[in-house]
Amino acid sequence: MNWKPDKSSHDPIYLQIADHFEGKMRDGEYPSGSCLPSERKLAATLDVNRSTVVTAYDHLASLGLVARVKGFGTVATDRQTFDGTAKRIPNWEQYAKSGFLHRNDPITRHIHAILGSDQSNINFAIGELSPDLFPVALMQQAHSRIEMSQYLGYEHIQGNIGLRDSIAGHLRTHRGIASSASSILVTSGAQQAIQLIIQGLLKPGDGVAIEDPSYCFSMPIFHSAGLRTYRLSVEQDGVDPEQIVSLYKRHRIKMVFLNPIYHNPTGTTMSAERRKRLLDISTKFGIAIVEDDPYSLTGFGQAPEGTLKSMDRDGSVLYVSSLSKIVSSGLRIGWIAGPHSVIQRLTDAKQQLDFGHSNIPQWIAAQLLSSGELDNHLRKLRTGLQHKLEQTISSLRTEFGDRIKFRVPSGGIHLWCELDGEWDELQLFNQAIDLGVVITPGSTLGSHRNRIRLTYSRVDDREIAPGIRKLAEAYRYALGFDR
Amino acid sequence: MNWKPDKSSHDPIYLQIADHFEGKMRDGEYPSGSCLPSERKLAATLDVNRSTVVTAYDHLASLGLVARVKGFGTVATDRQTFDGTAKRIPNWEQYAKSGFLHRNDPITRHIHAILGSDQSNINFAIGELSPDLFPVALMQQAHSRIEMSQYLGYEHIQGNIGLRDSIAGHLRTHRGIASSASSILVTSGAQQAIQLIIQGLLKPGDGVAIEDPSYCFSMPIFHSAGLRTYRLSVEQDGVDPEQIVSLYKRHRIKMVFLNPIYHNPTGTTMSAERRKRLLDISTKFGIAIVEDDPYSLTGFGQAPEGTLKSMDRDGSVLYVSSLSKIVSSGLRIGWIAGPHSVIQRLTDAKQQLDFGHSNIPQWIAAQLLSSGELDNHLRKLRTGLQHKLEQTISSLRTEFGDRIKFRVPSGGIHLWCELDGEWDELQLFNQAIDLGVVITPGSTLGSHRNRIRLTYSRVDDREIAPGIRKLAEAYRYALGFDR
Repeated sequence: MNWKPDKSSHDPIYLQIADHFEGKMRDGEYPSGSCLPSERKLAATLDVNRSTVVTAYDHLASLGLVARVKGFGTVATDRQTFDGTAKRIPNWEQYAKSGFLHRNDPITRHIHAILGSDQSNINFAIGELSPDLFPVALMQQAHSRIEMSQYLGYEHIQGNIGLRDSIAGHLRTHRGIASSASSILVTSGAQQAIQLIIQGLLKPGDGVAIEDPSYCFSMPIFHSAGLRTYRLSVEQDGVDPEQIVSLYKRHRIKMVFLNPIYHNPTGTTMSAERRKRLLDISTKFGIAIVEDDPYSLTGFGQAPEGTLKSMDRDGSVLYVSSLSKIVSSGLRIGWIAGPHSVIQRLTDAKQQLDFGHSNIPQWIAAQLLSSGELDNHLRKLRTGLQHKLEQTISSLRTEFGDRIKFRVPSGGIHLWCELDGEWDELQLFNQAIDLGVVITPGSTLGSHRNRIRLTYSRVDDREIAPGIRKLAEAYRYALGFDR
Repeated sequence: MNWKPDKSSHDPIYLQIADHFEGKMRDGEYPSGSCLPSERKLAATLDVNRSTVVTAYDHLASLGLVARVKGFGTVATDRQTFDGTAKRIPNWEQYAKSGFLHRNDPITRHIHAILGSDQSNINFAIGELSPDLFPVALMQQAHSRIEMSQYLGYEHIQGNIGLRDSIAGHLRTHRGIASSASSILVTSGAQQAIQLIIQGLLKPGDGVAIEDPSYCFSMPIFHSAGLRTYRLSVEQDGVDPEQIVSLYKRHRIKMVFLNPIYHNPTGTTMSAERRKRLLDISTKFGIAIVEDDPYSLTGFGQAPEGTLKSMDRDGSVLYVSSLSKIVSSGLRIGWIAGPHSVIQRLTDAKQQLDFGHSNIPQWIAAQLLSSGELDNHLRKLRTGLQHKLEQTISSLRTEFGDRIKFRVPSGGIHLWCELDGEWDELQLFNQAIDLGVVITPGSTLGSHRNRIRLTYSRVDDREIAPGIRKLAEAYRYALGFDR
């Protein structure tokens, strides 16, 4: 037997063993009347306690799948003619382990479980805005203008036409992008946009390039969909486009996912020169580019950073953005702008995923985007974000001194930090949680060691200093100083 | 060459040929400098005009993939060292044809394209309510109570806790189901619920049973996900559960999808006896059941039909429902109730698909479901639906006489009709559209011939008689009488 239980898994060992044998029985490997391995032998083979095997076999017996026959062993029952007095409930654990979509990694799940159940934690982990940064008055105004007497049936699956017009206007005025309502698809944030692109345009075996580190790195969908992923390292002025040429030559990659402006998590922005070269490469080899742009309006500089899509003369870029990081992540309003044929295809995919976006948030978003007040809000937002960033940096310098390194970003909401010395990531993460602080361990976002991501947009100003102090405490613990 | 262009496809033949050769070149079958087949030979092999092949090769040349060399033929270029003067835009048609998610069938796409662009059609095709059936005052009341000063960040991915509490209360009082907020996941309608179940709990090669006819029959996701689907025929008192036993024995099906109450499209309801037997079979063989219940509150009888889930003592049923057919489909509020472990798994999947549902529709739905006014609305809704059904039946009798057959449903929103004689489905469908009436051809929902589905909930009362008159005209055309 090559199979072994995964001892690092959260699932109990006995259940892993039971599920394994249930699978084998389902596959016909143990027909009715045949014996399963003896408890002693199986325990030795799997390198577990015999009591664990006993518990596993008892579990299978409780499902009616085996009988424990004294002096004989554990025997597979004939489930087809099983007499019906015992019940065999669907094995939900087994179902939950199947599924085309892989699960999120355990750390990501843990972060969401903790923050979903206890709001008192200091949250440096989730990429969203703190309550003081939301445009509450603007939202209230838009909300109060909505009349329920308008049509309450399905919205257009591509998105409410008024909203798509507003997005097209916004893209022109704020992102330098020429588009029209027919080339825009409304999505549930950038998350769904990327899902739709993967599920709608790529097939198992296709090669794609993603940034290392990046948000994409943390997304299990690339592997769920059977894609081959190749990594592009992110440098101070973004990804080096020559990496893409070399990946194309070796692996025939079909698509590149990039976050060129105020990159998550590094905060870097791709230089104009590299962007130009990137577009040249895209149209030389016919490689599609996905530009994820959640942050271009959050910069502290004088002029907003121009988007890659604004330079795209040939329609080789699919542009993804949302209101999540600038207005309200709870609205779930994002969009894709791209060639009409692609948008039509992805609209059909969206119909299959959720039958189009909810109506009221779309009506509100349409008002927000066409409101003259949006720019005032964006100015306040940038000032607020910059203030949070400065506070975070100041606290980090106080608490960590020269044991921490980071580049100061000029926009976005994340700080990508390298912590000195030999420390265990999981210990730092868990100890911080024990102290009431949640951060994102670097390994969920990329392959470099000794990194953490601090998201500074979500945390209340007054909690920054105490939060960083506790993080420093957890760091000392993870270094072994406090144990 | 075994490959042939698909002449019934909407895609131009020349593009199919060009894409085919581009794929081969990508796969290395035509290295740089090698010759593609001669135009004359290829035209003969593919049984197309030579001019079509010329157009295809010209297209490839425009992409820089081949060079037309006089007196020699069509030669693959070396794209790696291509000189960069010509451009090769990403081949979006090719991307759009890939994709894990298969496209909806052409008829379904056509229905949505028509109804999305021209509201003046008489709509017997989309399963939603007409404007006069929406609870506008109730929605307005709920809407006006919402304050934007509450937290505008991400909602809990499993769904707003207040909404999940309201759904649990509603399930108890209106559907006879015991549940709690922790065993409920809020989804974007039943559509997303079924997607999540498929993508989160099943894997390629798994066998599932679906009803024939049914809404599931029309969903490409079953095949996109690589599932083997087996059909259960729907009889007057629902599906015969013995069919499931036989499918299990032969194909080891893992899940059964059913719409037991006021079934779409047949309107039938599964008998209590069959439901009991179904649950016995589920817990005998460990087969999971998905109960899709959009309609149980729409019945014209005295007492509402009890749900299958209300009889489920062992937790083998995943219960799916929504507000789409009773309040507003535009809100996109649906839910899954089931075992906690399954709900956790599907919550993780929903995070990956869209990062949780939009906030405001959830807050509104929570108010609606806990409002004492909901029952008043449901009473009015049932009366309104019954009126539309009676009008539809009366018009059908007038226009079609004994050439149409249907069972009169006691709830739901659909009428499943069999039309007499030899008629062409596509002709009926297209001719009806020419006359301004949209219906659902039976072949999109099941394997029986000569069927159409008339959805009577969406159409304005005054449009029923003229709509059916036009449909009868299209029917005569499809029979060949009017040509």
